[in-house]
Amino acid sequence: MAGRAYRLRGRMWIEGPDGTFLGYGRVVLLERIREHGSISAAARSMEMSYRHAWQLVDSMNRQSREAVVEKSAGGRGGGGAILTAAGERAVAAFWSAHGDFREFLARRNRQLDL
Amino acid sequence: MAGRAYRLRGRMWIEGPDGTFLGYGRVVLLERIREHGSISAAARSMEMSYRHAWQLVDSMNRQSREAVVEKSAGGRGGGGAILTAAGERAVAAFWSAHGDFREFLARRNRQLDL
Repeated sequence: MAGRAYRLRGRMWIEGPDGTFLGYGRVVLLERIREHGSISAAARSMEMSYRHAWQLVDSMNRQSREAVVEKSAGGRGGGGAILTAAGERAVAAFWSAHGDFREFLARRNRQLDL
Repeated sequence: MAGRAYRLRGRMWIEGPDGTFLGYGRVVLLERIREHGSISAAARSMEMSYRHAWQLVDSMNRQSREAVVEKSAGGRGGGGAILTAAGERAVAAFWSAHGDFREFLARRNRQLDL
């Protein structure tokens, strides 16, 4: 077999009481909510329906002791949303685990005995 | 957030020149071919169509310098298949990486700062 033709790949997510709590797409959504200050603008920026984005946020909020996203009072159009401190911690925890996972894959890939 | 309510999960596969070379399902199929001595019996044992099993075997064979599954000469009904030495090495390499991956997830799960 052709040695370096092969590569170890993987996906990683954090499971909560109801299934997926945080995965790559959910974390990007949280970061976009932080950036855009609203769920609908965040969804639009990812070409995701508002309904789907809302369901993901609801799933994360229901699985957290503290909400990861909250409605923001005021703002230009009302209806905004913010990433809470708990949300920031969740995002940081995900990227930290994700970085270690990437490192594991790269290291283990070099030992792939194929 | 509820600490031990969260768990790191993941999937892992080996990619070849044409996409997936070996994943969990493909490795189980190879082991069933070793056990049953035919692709059709292996497929049946996994409730997989013969067509799908054949496509998976073909994909693995095309991506290997040496075939992982070969037709076996003779046998009761003719038409049998065997796992080659290259196939055995591929199965072993997958389980070895998979075991390290499980260990990584378990270890990293204990450090999950959520």
